Amino acid sequence: MPVESRAIDRSAMLYREPMTTDLPDWREYREQGLSRVLAAAASAFVERGYDGTSIREIASRAGLSVPGLYHHYPSKQALLVGLTDAVMDDLLTRSYAASASAGQGPSAQFDAIVENLLRFHMFRRESSLIASRETENMEPDARAAYIARRDEQQRMVDDVVRAGVAAGVFDTPFPEDASRAVVTMCVAVSTWYRPDGPLSPDEIVRRYLAVARSAVGAR
Amino acid sequence: MPVESRAIDRSAMLYREPMTTDLPDWREYREQGLSRVLAAAASAFVERGYDGTSIREIASRAGLSVPGLYHHYPSKQALLVGLTDAVMDDLLTRSYAASASAGQGPSAQFDAIVENLLRFHMFRRESSLIASRETENMEPDARAAYIARRDEQQRMVDDVVRAGVAAGVFDTPFPEDASRAVVTMCVAVSTWYRPDGPLSPDEIVRRYLAVARSAVGAR
Repeated sequence: MPVESRAIDRSAMLYREPMTTDLPDWREYREQGLSRVLAAAASAFVERGYDGTSIREIASRAGLSVPGLYHHYPSKQALLVGLTDAVMDDLLTRSYAASASAGQGPSAQFDAIVENLLRFHMFRRESSLIASRETENMEPDARAAYIARRDEQQRMVDDVVRAGVAAGVFDTPFPEDASRAVVTMCVAVSTWYRPDGPLSPDEIVRRYLAVARSAVGAR
Repeated sequence: MPVESRAIDRSAMLYREPMTTDLPDWREYREQGLSRVLAAAASAFVERGYDGTSIREIASRAGLSVPGLYHHYPSKQALLVGLTDAVMDDLLTRSYAASASAGQGPSAQFDAIVENLLRFHMFRRESSLIASRETENMEPDARAAYIARRDEQQRMVDDVVRAGVAAGVFDTPFPEDASRAVVTMCVAVSTWYRPDGPLSPDEIVRRYLAVARSAVGAR
């Protein structure tokens, strides 16, 4: 079956008590756990782009014949959808976990959600880049599903910024625009972050969180 | 000859008196003035991506035979470089004009440079998107030249943010990071702006400039 299940019940996570032990640790990154075939597609798409990658190339990287690859995924498009689903599952699961772990106040919630966005776009930068770069190459239904989940992530930040303004801990006349700018800034980290770069992930979080808080007028 | 000249002496512009009549009006956008061949390449690259576009497709859109197209540009790569050069010439010329027209204070300079970035990524959104999306498809020398000019634009913002902090009109412990966030936010406008969208360009400038000023801690 080509496409991972979307049946994770995320709504339930939002209302759990914070810090229950069964929440995933949103700060911890191990191997992404992609199947061999999806990992092969990801490495090819990153290096050559979706249009520049052939099914033969992906099969070769996965150590499979072309018919063997088709046994797992019926098309290159199905591989792109499988990757995009996996990356958005991972992101949203971590975002809800970050939000739940931060408790109730909008300032602490904002910090956790933004920190999660920053870490995710460092530690999952390749698959994040594929999703954002190849959006135009998704077929209409898959693109709509991807954009809906991207919007879900954006709305989490919008809601917490609006809540912060209502609570008087943030001060901006344009909460939605500030929220979009913050998400954009975090997502863009995947375009320049390098594990061997001069700044550690923790230092990048420290700096960009400060800039993000400034953008929403945190007091 | 495939590639536009890079011989504009921009350094001279920086030190002109503000508001001289021979500065281009950086707020005015007419047709981009691309040659028929570059315009054909741009429309194909936007719709199909660089990898997904054939020389035959570009020739057909330009109303030329394939040999006729090769007479103007020897390769698809040369078309990408021609487009990227044109877009960066346009951006940097306008940025220096915006800077010069704003006079001396870092706060007014910041406003003009950010407003210019925002307008450019609305009114030149297609060619901006090509340059940023296809960076990986540029051959090494062309990519290095493009990145150098993108860095030049980033440095203009960095310099004015640092000057603002030194002058006490901006307040951020991380001027370079805030500056990068501001440029990222402006560049990303090209990914969502639509001429028939709900916000006018002037309203987008008003909102995003406010968010950008907040990000650098404008007092």
